[in-house]
Amino acid sequence: MNEATDATADVRNVVIVGSGVAGLSAAVYAARADLEPLVLEGPEPGGQLTLTTDVENYLGFPEGVGGMELIQNGKDQAERFGAEFEHGTVEDATLADRPFELELSNGDRLRTRALIVASGASARWVGAENEDELMGYGLSTCATCDGAFHRGDDVLVIGGGDSAMEEALFLAKFADSVTVVHRREELRASEIMADRARDNETIEFRWNTELEALRGSQDEGVTGATLVSHPEGYPLEQAANGADVTRETVDVGGVFYAIGHTPNTDFLAGTAVDRDESGYLHTRTDDAGRATTETAVEGVFAAGDVADPNYQQAITAAGTGSMAALDAESYLETLERTTEPALEVSQ
Amino acid sequence: MNEATDATADVRNVVIVGSGVAGLSAAVYAARADLEPLVLEGPEPGGQLTLTTDVENYLGFPEGVGGMELIQNGKDQAERFGAEFEHGTVEDATLADRPFELELSNGDRLRTRALIVASGASARWVGAENEDELMGYGLSTCATCDGAFHRGDDVLVIGGGDSAMEEALFLAKFADSVTVVHRREELRASEIMADRARDNETIEFRWNTELEALRGSQDEGVTGATLVSHPEGYPLEQAANGADVTRETVDVGGVFYAIGHTPNTDFLAGTAVDRDESGYLHTRTDDAGRATTETAVEGVFAAGDVADPNYQQAITAAGTGSMAALDAESYLETLERTTEPALEVSQ
Repeated sequence: MNEATDATADVRNVVIVGSGVAGLSAAVYAARADLEPLVLEGPEPGGQLTLTTDVENYLGFPEGVGGMELIQNGKDQAERFGAEFEHGTVEDATLADRPFELELSNGDRLRTRALIVASGASARWVGAENEDELMGYGLSTCATCDGAFHRGDDVLVIGGGDSAMEEALFLAKFADSVTVVHRREELRASEIMADRARDNETIEFRWNTELEALRGSQDEGVTGATLVSHPEGYPLEQAANGADVTRETVDVGGVFYAIGHTPNTDFLAGTAVDRDESGYLHTRTDDAGRATTETAVEGVFAAGDVADPNYQQAITAAGTGSMAALDAESYLETLERTTEPALEVSQ
Repeated sequence: MNEATDATADVRNVVIVGSGVAGLSAAVYAARADLEPLVLEGPEPGGQLTLTTDVENYLGFPEGVGGMELIQNGKDQAERFGAEFEHGTVEDATLADRPFELELSNGDRLRTRALIVASGASARWVGAENEDELMGYGLSTCATCDGAFHRGDDVLVIGGGDSAMEEALFLAKFADSVTVVHRREELRASEIMADRARDNETIEFRWNTELEALRGSQDEGVTGATLVSHPEGYPLEQAANGADVTRETVDVGGVFYAIGHTPNTDFLAGTAVDRDESGYLHTRTDDAGRATTETAVEGVFAAGDVADPNYQQAITAAGTGSMAALDAESYLETLERTTEPALEVSQ
């Protein structure tokens, strides 16, 4: 028995990949269940919510709560019950054998019986000319992080959804003008957010328009942008199809991308975990057709935005985080019951 | 057009049935989406959480939050965005025609375009002799409500799950002795809760035992209980099958039921909304197999415990509440687009 104990001493019960709302909620539940979870914080500790100022729709905070504050609260709560946090990003996962093995980007290896993937989804890039060079130099995916650098500037926000409206409203506090550049004629944003943006005098809209190229340098920052327009929308596609489009270069001091997110699931490539064409994880329904957090690999669970292209709310991520921990707990209990006799036989 | 406007003036966009965590989260989202939701509070305003003292696992509150406090916060939050609350319990629902029609227990009728069912699940009764007479007179389904009436008493808790452990731990603060009566030899509770109960010196366990009858009167309250035991468990079933069982009458001052919940879906009987054999609602998955809150009736959505026999957590209910409001919003948008031309034709 001692040998077996030694051999499994460095195997975790559960590793949680990601420290956003979903990972934190999973950590609270797993820690309260005495599973001593390890949370790998990932390249963006705290996840998407750290890029938000006020969260108004997370139930329980009548006056709203700061994104950073909610994340810090959640981390304190998880640590209070014994969750452990570590800087680290998973590079590769070997899920064919038990225990699972994770390789981190610093070369460390971890072994774990159960895995909760809560690695979220990251902001998408437009693909405009010069964006690689200028990202972080006047080009940003996070208005709340970088907005304050643009006092008195004219800035562009690329996108037409809720997060584009949020970014625009935030930037309107600092910038001289904020122009929302949207490839269609109609916003994808919710009514309330769209109305707020429309009612803001600093915010303008450029419909049926896309960003083609950025101007500037790492020394000067972003100085201009080339915009392409077509009256029927999707101008870059129209241009590719040979249609006449209008090109205009505007002077701007900052450009913000708000065109959606890509799930962080590259480290699961080559595993049996099921992903859709965008990379979002699939989770199973139980025999009664009810949602679970189980992936196609037994013992691997998914929570939060990484498995949810549809809702992507803080409160839904917290909900599925708790489900993943409960599912992992019951998986580990079953594992214990079924593997203990086998261990005895092998002695 | 005026006529059409008049005819629809009393039709709500969305009515939310239930004011627990799920209903409140749905109300916050629906109100922020300018849908002016009406929340019908039901026979137990605030739902199951109002029967809980401290909630430790709802993400965002490192020191925990009171059940009543979380509910009040949520109600304030929903009202801040314009949600309306009304006392009222739905007796009957007519969902075959549009708009839907609801009949309340006071005879009032309501019409609504979309319906969110968040009516929760209520505590189950054992079926012991005299329980009808003694419920509320020493017999209770809520330790946090009635525990303080039992200082110095010997009390029983019936059940073996997490909520039974919670009730027992709470009662141990007041009672001289707390005996958990469980029909099997093993608890269904999670490790952490079971350990806590076992470590508490005031709490004892009676395994393979069931409650058969209660003694007492409405004047005296509960004075005793008849317990039935069988070494193989499920003693009442064993007795019905002719096995020898042990009967014992014990003196107790209080009895608490903690044997699970029944979903509050009777008002949906006769509608096309799909329920399982226990009465829990079924919700659909979308084309990609992902969870939604849609029921079998288009325009009717389900959130919280009423559609979740598996997890039943405050945070999961809040999550599905927000999903239901987002689903209802998108349903109403589609409805608007598809019915507007039809209305014009009928003019």
